[in-house]
Amino acid sequence: MKGQEFSVSEDVITLSHGSGGLVSRELINNVFVKKFSNAALSRLDDFANVGKVGGNLIFTTDSYVIDPIFFPGGDIGKLSVCGTINDICMSGAIPLFISVGLIIEEGFLIEDLLKISRSMAATARRSGVRIVCGDTKVVDRGKADKIFINTAGIGKIDGSPIYGSGAMPGDAVIVSGFVGDHGVSILSRRSGLEFSTSLKSDCAALDGLVKDIIEFKNDIHAMRDPTRGGIATLLNEVAKQSGVSVFIDEKDIPIRDEVNAACEMLGLDPLYLANEGKLVVFADKRVATEVLSLMRKNKLGKDAANIGEVTDMIPPRVYCRTQLGTTRLLDMLSGEQFPRIC
Amino acid sequence: MKGQEFSVSEDVITLSHGSGGLVSRELINNVFVKKFSNAALSRLDDFANVGKVGGNLIFTTDSYVIDPIFFPGGDIGKLSVCGTINDICMSGAIPLFISVGLIIEEGFLIEDLLKISRSMAATARRSGVRIVCGDTKVVDRGKADKIFINTAGIGKIDGSPIYGSGAMPGDAVIVSGFVGDHGVSILSRRSGLEFSTSLKSDCAALDGLVKDIIEFKNDIHAMRDPTRGGIATLLNEVAKQSGVSVFIDEKDIPIRDEVNAACEMLGLDPLYLANEGKLVVFADKRVATEVLSLMRKNKLGKDAANIGEVTDMIPPRVYCRTQLGTTRLLDMLSGEQFPRIC
Repeated sequence: MKGQEFSVSEDVITLSHGSGGLVSRELINNVFVKKFSNAALSRLDDFANVGKVGGNLIFTTDSYVIDPIFFPGGDIGKLSVCGTINDICMSGAIPLFISVGLIIEEGFLIEDLLKISRSMAATARRSGVRIVCGDTKVVDRGKADKIFINTAGIGKIDGSPIYGSGAMPGDAVIVSGFVGDHGVSILSRRSGLEFSTSLKSDCAALDGLVKDIIEFKNDIHAMRDPTRGGIATLLNEVAKQSGVSVFIDEKDIPIRDEVNAACEMLGLDPLYLANEGKLVVFADKRVATEVLSLMRKNKLGKDAANIGEVTDMIPPRVYCRTQLGTTRLLDMLSGEQFPRIC
Repeated sequence: MKGQEFSVSEDVITLSHGSGGLVSRELINNVFVKKFSNAALSRLDDFANVGKVGGNLIFTTDSYVIDPIFFPGGDIGKLSVCGTINDICMSGAIPLFISVGLIIEEGFLIEDLLKISRSMAATARRSGVRIVCGDTKVVDRGKADKIFINTAGIGKIDGSPIYGSGAMPGDAVIVSGFVGDHGVSILSRRSGLEFSTSLKSDCAALDGLVKDIIEFKNDIHAMRDPTRGGIATLLNEVAKQSGVSVFIDEKDIPIRDEVNAACEMLGLDPLYLANEGKLVVFADKRVATEVLSLMRKNKLGKDAANIGEVTDMIPPRVYCRTQLGTTRLLDMLSGEQFPRIC
């Protein structure tokens, strides 16, 4: 890469790359403008004109501080684009534009930055999303950990979005596939905790899967992706926002043997483990079978399962019928089991 | 604050505050939803529905890693909102919505987070901008430096934005006031470099000032705010983007005595020092006097000055007539004089 993409022969990010001067400009031109190629970005203004957008606008943001930055199934770049696409999709909207804010530690390998940028560009391209504006800051060595990425995104939707507050008694609760893969995969690579597993993160953009079921939009009362805090946290959030209770059946929840094994070893509950390519749908029971069958036709939803139902019990709680036939309260955790999982 | 705004009696940010669990939720409800109060944010979804927005959309992002986070004239919160408002305004657009992504180091004082949030809320309110979505990540102690803030923003504009590529031969170059205040003010508080000065950062939202001159939009060929890299970098960027040269007169550039003194002491050039509340306008000379006089009526533009003009000389360069009567080339710096100035 040296000498080929950079006139200044450098292998690592220096403070100058975040200066706004010539070296910054070179980085922007050689990495971002090239990889994220589009007219709005190439103008090199401090803003992007993305033109007229009809319908209601959906706006979202997330920062990514995951450790390690490269992991089985993805990297921080792919994750940061998927995460924002998914937050937009969960509203039922079509993701359109993404902004990227990079905070890089001095000494970071330019080769790694190129890998991450390629990964962001490829992920955006696959979902038809354009990365239209960005910003790069560099901090002294030891003042950040390698790289942090913020993405914000704009989507559009005709009519009302799907909110987390719309779940209704009688709704079926459908999860799009195996839960906990991302969490276990990251932990297995975490320094000081390494263990061997064939698991990969499920990191994926869910726009295609949402598109496949969006014809049932009016009967999908709530939808969300179970990231930090896992499906247990998601169910609690939606229960609380909607003022309903949720009953799920442990035996119906798709969990891989490797995830169960790792959880036993580490003393974790898979229902609280992070996912980065799953969604949970609260659908009117009249359409549940059809929604499930549509999801299963998509490779990101092929292991989808109906895991429970919504009831009108108050106060809003989440209950889980265990395989032993007992019922346990699935509460919201106070904190996270592990930091920097996304 | 303890016990009053928080049921869990904590003084500092812990990893749990970034977990997505109960402690996270409490932080979001007690700090952000309360301070940034608006309907879209209060829904607690992972996205904000900001409704229909007419005209062309302007999208921008910036991360803020300034050190120190509290400084004379502002703090990282005010800076992060002003910065994104200004990037939108420079296009001629009206800023509407802002997203906030926080990366906080474990152990950060909750009291400081409240101060910063109040400052963001007040700044947004004054410009009629709503902070509609956000995200909080917490990283282990030593993995980030106190707090980093990303803001992205959406604005709207009827017709075409003002780009950096539109400067034309014959344009007058007008700067809205004293340059270098922000840079010197931050450096004076930088650990290991402290010196005494009465200078304050010029950190300010420029939407009002832009509004005052926007009637001349068609004759304002380019406009930008001189942040990192100062006005020298801005002039070089616009010269290059527009394919023109710029001549400025050193004697006409408003620079405070304190800034000149600090620059002499530190061996710096004030034209490369960061500003956070200034703008540079490239206006058709027919309207330059009127634009200048409108700017001077606004308190953020009262020291505005016509500092030079655009010529058709190529290659695109920036020249500065010194007080000695000589002309020096004002080149783009390779890197920044100091990191983490914004």
